[in-house]
Amino acid sequence: MDSPKASNKEILLFSMPEEVGALAKALKIFEDNKVNLLHIESRSSKRSIGDYEFIVEIDTILGDVAGAMEQLRKQSSYFQIISRDHKDGNEETIPWFPGRIQDLDRFANQILSYGSELDSDHPGFTDPVYRARRKEFADIAFNYKYGEKIPRVEYTPEETATWGTIYRQLTKLYPTHACREFNHNFPLLIENCGYKEDNIPQLQDISDFLHDCTGFTLRPVAGLLSSRDFLAGLAFRVFHSTQYIRHGSVPLYTPEPDVCHELLGHVPLFADPEFAQFSQEIGLASLGAPDEYIERLATCYWFTVEYGMCRQGGELKAYGAGLLSSFGELEYCLTDKPEIRPFDPAKTALQKYPITSYQPVYFVSDSFEDAKEKMIAYAKTIPRPFSVRYNPYTLNVEILNSKPQLENLLKNINWEITRITDALCKMR
Amino acid sequence: MDSPKASNKEILLFSMPEEVGALAKALKIFEDNKVNLLHIESRSSKRSIGDYEFIVEIDTILGDVAGAMEQLRKQSSYFQIISRDHKDGNEETIPWFPGRIQDLDRFANQILSYGSELDSDHPGFTDPVYRARRKEFADIAFNYKYGEKIPRVEYTPEETATWGTIYRQLTKLYPTHACREFNHNFPLLIENCGYKEDNIPQLQDISDFLHDCTGFTLRPVAGLLSSRDFLAGLAFRVFHSTQYIRHGSVPLYTPEPDVCHELLGHVPLFADPEFAQFSQEIGLASLGAPDEYIERLATCYWFTVEYGMCRQGGELKAYGAGLLSSFGELEYCLTDKPEIRPFDPAKTALQKYPITSYQPVYFVSDSFEDAKEKMIAYAKTIPRPFSVRYNPYTLNVEILNSKPQLENLLKNINWEITRITDALCKMR
Amino acid sequence: MDSPKASNKEILLFSMPEEVGALAKALKIFEDNKVNLLHIESRSSKRSIGDYEFIVEIDTILGDVAGAMEQLRKQSSYFQIISRDHKDGNEETIPWFPGRIQDLDRFANQILSYGSELDSDHPGFTDPVYRARRKEFADIAFNYKYGEKIPRVEYTPEETATWGTIYRQLTKLYPTHACREFNHNFPLLIENCGYKEDNIPQLQDISDFLHDCTGFTLRPVAGLLSSRDFLAGLAFRVFHSTQYIRHGSVPLYTPEPDVCHELLGHVPLFADPEFAQFSQEIGLASLGAPDEYIERLATCYWFTVEYGMCRQGGELKAYGAGLLSSFGELEYCLTDKPEIRPFDPAKTALQKYPITSYQPVYFVSDSFEDAKEKMIAYAKTIPRPFSVRYNPYTLNVEILNSKPQLENLLKNINWEITRITDALCKMR
Amino acid sequence: MDSPKASNKEILLFSMPEEVGALAKALKIFEDNKVNLLHIESRSSKRSIGDYEFIVEIDTILGDVAGAMEQLRKQSSYFQIISRDHKDGNEETIPWFPGRIQDLDRFANQILSYGSELDSDHPGFTDPVYRARRKEFADIAFNYKYGEKIPRVEYTPEETATWGTIYRQLTKLYPTHACREFNHNFPLLIENCGYKEDNIPQLQDISDFLHDCTGFTLRPVAGLLSSRDFLAGLAFRVFHSTQYIRHGSVPLYTPEPDVCHELLGHVPLFADPEFAQFSQEIGLASLGAPDEYIERLATCYWFTVEYGMCRQGGELKAYGAGLLSSFGELEYCLTDKPEIRPFDPAKTALQKYPITSYQPVYFVSDSFEDAKEKMIAYAKTIPRPFSVRYNPYTLNVEILNSKPQLENLLKNINWEITRITDALCKMR
Repeated sequence: MDSPKASNKEILLFSMPEEVGALAKALKIFEDNKVNLLHIESRSSKRSIGDYEFIVEIDTILGDVAGAMEQLRKQSSYFQIISRDHKDGNEETIPWFPGRIQDLDRFANQILSYGSELDSDHPGFTDPVYRARRKEFADIAFNYKYGEKIPRVEYTPEETATWGTIYRQLTKLYPTHACREFNHNFPLLIENCGYKEDNIPQLQDISDFLHDCTGFTLRPVAGLLSSRDFLAGLAFRVFHSTQYIRHGSVPLYTPEPDVCHELLGHVPLFADPEFAQFSQEIGLASLGAPDEYIERLATCYWFTVEYGMCRQGGELKAYGAGLLSSFGELEYCLTDKPEIRPFDPAKTALQKYPITSYQPVYFVSDSFEDAKEKMIAYAKTIPRPFSVRYNPYTLNVEILNSKPQLENLLKNINWEITRITDALCKMR
Repeated sequence: MDSPKASNKEILLFSMPEEVGALAKALKIFEDNKVNLLHIESRSSKRSIGDYEFIVEIDTILGDVAGAMEQLRKQSSYFQIISRDHKDGNEETIPWFPGRIQDLDRFANQILSYGSELDSDHPGFTDPVYRARRKEFADIAFNYKYGEKIPRVEYTPEETATWGTIYRQLTKLYPTHACREFNHNFPLLIENCGYKEDNIPQLQDISDFLHDCTGFTLRPVAGLLSSRDFLAGLAFRVFHSTQYIRHGSVPLYTPEPDVCHELLGHVPLFADPEFAQFSQEIGLASLGAPDEYIERLATCYWFTVEYGMCRQGGELKAYGAGLLSSFGELEYCLTDKPEIRPFDPAKTALQKYPITSYQPVYFVSDSFEDAKEKMIAYAKTIPRPFSVRYNPYTLNVEILNSKPQLENLLKNINWEITRITDALCKMR
Repeated sequence: MDSPKASNKEILLFSMPEEVGALAKALKIFEDNKVNLLHIESRSSKRSIGDYEFIVEIDTILGDVAGAMEQLRKQSSYFQIISRDHKDGNEETIPWFPGRIQDLDRFANQILSYGSELDSDHPGFTDPVYRARRKEFADIAFNYKYGEKIPRVEYTPEETATWGTIYRQLTKLYPTHACREFNHNFPLLIENCGYKEDNIPQLQDISDFLHDCTGFTLRPVAGLLSSRDFLAGLAFRVFHSTQYIRHGSVPLYTPEPDVCHELLGHVPLFADPEFAQFSQEIGLASLGAPDEYIERLATCYWFTVEYGMCRQGGELKAYGAGLLSSFGELEYCLTDKPEIRPFDPAKTALQKYPITSYQPVYFVSDSFEDAKEKMIAYAKTIPRPFSVRYNPYTLNVEILNSKPQLENLLKNINWEITRITDALCKMR
Repeated sequence: MDSPKASNKEILLFSMPEEVGALAKALKIFEDNKVNLLHIESRSSKRSIGDYEFIVEIDTILGDVAGAMEQLRKQSSYFQIISRDHKDGNEETIPWFPGRIQDLDRFANQILSYGSELDSDHPGFTDPVYRARRKEFADIAFNYKYGEKIPRVEYTPEETATWGTIYRQLTKLYPTHACREFNHNFPLLIENCGYKEDNIPQLQDISDFLHDCTGFTLRPVAGLLSSRDFLAGLAFRVFHSTQYIRHGSVPLYTPEPDVCHELLGHVPLFADPEFAQFSQEIGLASLGAPDEYIERLATCYWFTVEYGMCRQGGELKAYGAGLLSSFGELEYCLTDKPEIRPFDPAKTALQKYPITSYQPVYFVSDSFEDAKEKMIAYAKTIPRPFSVRYNPYTLNVEILNSKPQLENLLKNINWEITRITDALCKMR
């Protein structure tokens, strides 16, 4: 999972005091230095009361970029360069990360391998119909923009049959092998989203249902995202989901995530509030983290969201999507063959793992709340010169590093407690 | 502002323990009693851990409705009838209110007067072109559904000229007459949303901008909503906005809200976080309130969001949209002609007011935060057997009346405080 | 109410990094500069993690005080001069205030008029027996030290008779004239503290009872304290109480507080948790406040704790001790003769008042909680470069001005919320 | 550590509505049933707003106790029997525990072995002078009452020499073997409490110092308390401390706690706020817990407060008093001989341990905060039908099981947050 390659764009974030022509003044600096502006937005600054904040995307090739920055820095109450080319250790810049949910649209053309390019050992490699079909799905994802409905897909009878085979097998194991939260939510997906043997549910229906349960939504994805980008989606409670199905020739095998993996493995858990928060915490921890920590967080993600197990009523149960979507590994994981260790992010983050065979080691949590607490404690150890907070009203991630922001959050807590007190008062 | 007329639908909200076939069991009760189901949804219950919650819309005309309810009540851990025909004092039912943001779609056909039906004294009454144009706008709103983009409108040169006249006049007064928050946000609307003399901004652009600032969005509205419905929108940070413009013959007068009133009067304030919260509090207070209190809340809305004034730096300033969109009344309100009283919801709620002349009395707040505190304190006095809370992740309003919900909220506060502590730790 | 006169002592508060001989190093600076140390204490610093904090009292007459301070300031992570001679506007020093409950012992010899020196128009002026008795009481107070039991006094039959006259009169009015909280607590004082017609209760018994109810305690006082000192006591939930009784010749009159005023007027309210918090807030607001604000706070105290009224169930009731201990004024205050205004600290603080006649104006609160909220809001407007917090475990007042302190307080809130969540969980 | 033997007293806790003669009514019930009252107190009820709460101690031998209880139960809004003879599983009663700090006086005559009765293998068994001296110390403790000063003791030159031997030895090891918090506080004890080689510090001086740091105080104890009683003291931040010193013939050995163990082992840690909270949490968890859990908590206490270790800067350090007061075991514990396990209350609570030899197993925490979090989580698993909270103002433990109490606590949190917000505002 490589980092994306260098770009010739930088994003500048700076504030200007509220005065007539604050924006014009800023624009003039770019003009004077012959720097090209690609995009500009202005907002009220949350960090510096009464100031404006400008988010400016510039072309770094032309003009005296350094000179413009120097001038801006002098006139701003804060000034930050947000860069997709940030190198760890460079204190001049902050690594770029999506600040608004629509920024996730930028990932569409940052995919590491495009969905229709199959490896030579892929079961569908020699099947031109399958490859054409994969291209169709990849195009949907490639063209998708935030706020649109995910196009509904008419799956072919062959595709539905593949789904059916998997569905039948797995639903036999769920009652005994899946965790309580999974089994609680699965019937709701049957009733509300069309989960059944002879129907592949539509992403949009699922996305709507999840949104109503926990605020999670699905986004179609055209191929493999970098770990940094994929995890960033979780910070917004957005899950990048494939829409195609595996090749029908080997229904119980797929070398990559497909719609069966997403819908049977991931979706039921994202309807659980605690799990949704846990997943978002991984995402928030990743924003602006150094590369080395992105890898560690991706490993934590692997051993929880993909291959996590938990203890419930004294028994081991699976909650990871990689387990819940694989008949073989779901059976295997509850045998005494694999090794079981307690989930401890600091250690789990360093564990090596195979991606083509059953896992030799699984990590176990007591509850999603417990896992979340541990993730948050771990996140604090990630070297990052700021904290972030997700604002669920604006769907923005805010960099928290000023007193006015903290004062506002404390006031919000006051209101929330007042509301709880009132509710308590009215109970019974 | 009448209540909507009786319907033959009721909504039932009830929970069933998690067990195989919980839904089937519930459905059978309706079938046995020959009750028609119009809609059914199931969710995980937040009030009764491990149970399912069913939201069922039934036709109350056919079948043994009372019998079905009786049976359901016995088997549910909670059971509520939510009724648009609820009469105050009836403890059997709860007044209907939108629980999800998409429920606001139901208001579209509940409008009290349809947008294109003009009164005989309306400046456009005898202008067939204007009336046709009004019908176009009304249709946009009538057909609008949650989640869609608000159609962009190409305004005619005449319409733009009307806007221009008003824009020129008002922007002269704003620096001296409008409150600080208004003047802080106005330049941002110029820069980001196309506010200018020769352009009527598009609702969707404004809605996007507001959403990014405070989570507020605009919804086109086809005509006059009841107070109950209009206020309910605010609970979701949704503002029902007209899109048409007043008749060009009398540009400084309009007998009803128009796009000038909304965009110049309301929008700049909805970009302010404190004001956004204040407005939402009025909305939340209205949900399920008795009719008498709806009227009081509508009066509070009138004297704040429409005609509110505040004291800043020792001087009176206007923040109400009715003032900020009327050149005449904006000048008048700062003279010594009107009477000025402190905003005190318990008293303000009972104040009579004219709707066709300048207000003889205005109410003054020290700050939006202060106004919000007072509204919340007042809201507690509204007789309502439950508290509500808005979940900004799911865009749902939750009825708060169980311990598990309060426990969850308290846990969330813990996480929020942990995050604040971490941020404080990292500052400087 | 004058400020106490200048002293030749200053208190220095400074921190030193934790290292071998930190204290020795500090002491050497004083020695080198020939500055006399009167007292020295060391603690762990709460503001600068891992450092020590020294509280040093120096004699400012001998040695190179300025030089020593300069050297200390350079080596300290913080350094403050706390001075009883602080003049408003001097940013070099902070006004002295008690930091620990035992510091209140210092007030004993700061009294403005000694208890046995009666004015010539005092009813007991010419009564040598009464004057000798007053001296006895004054000596008790003068010699009292924090932590000791308040000496029990055997009141004479004449004294008890005076008490009895007043007790009989007032208890007739209480049911109709006193506030709910007063009437709730009065029977508890009868049952637990010996309140009855023929017995003057003992201060220690009352102090123990109050401590068990709200943490308030009584301290005997030898004479009139300055407003600054008297209010400072309230910050520690300590009430300076007289122990002598008025002259028996005019039982319904006293030119100064006496045991009847304290026990019948003040004590029943200090057993109410909300009122206790309210009183403490006035005290906390006064610590280190400029002289001008001390006077304002003393005026707020006058119009609440001494002459406050409240509205309960639509009726006016008295809660001020000056009212509740005066048969005449208690009757008068509920007539339509006096003027009634809402309690609003910013305005109340500026109201002039007579001290020898019935009050022409009273201020009314809706509840103690409401009054407390208003006092806290008012306290924020007092110009003071720090916040204070009372630590009820250590009985210390802490100056809050560092991140580690706030982080600790936020953590404590988390524990408190965890405890509430657990309790909620266990209810029913 | 046995439970104390049965008594013929019970404590009843019940509430009565506020009305004239509420107490008289209650008393009459006892009289009618010929039940003897040993003690009676009344307070304002915190659980049932506007009611009174009565705490009545009755003699259970005479009269119709059951009949009286039955009548009271009917007339009370709550009614609880608090019994020192409570048997686990009996839902009629709650185990007795001290509700106020002065209730700890009751432990004085509940000691399991009196201080002067030495075992035959005690080093001082045959030394009549030592035995007489022990009796002196035991009498001090036996007669001590809450609120008194702990008598100062003049230690003999022999006693001081014994102290000196131990002091010299241990202070050599502390810099390398003791935890950071210990080494931070030790110099403060030297400077403020007279810790030095040739002086045994006085308990009262230490108690005063600790109180000023964390609110902890010392109480002299005449002998061994039951685990239940000893832990209950910690709930009030009270540590029961011996005052005598071991026999001088074997200065590095003592079969029981002595003043060297308390002052060198325990005291420095009780000056640390986090450790103080941690210790109090063990105490609070014990109040009213079943016998089986008392034993578990006592085991947790053993492996933390007595023999705890922690990891600091990658190295193991000792913080347990049993280690810090024993030269031999302090050296041993950092070798590779003992087994080291992570502190996990659920497991630690079940670990067996020797009391006469070095520990074979130690439990390690990352920090006191971490240990406290774990203890609180463990405490929640203790079966107890209520939560408790310590009120540091009144020095009372409150049973938390009503909505009004929780509402008050939530309001207090709001005030605390307001104060923090204000302090944050004023920083810098």
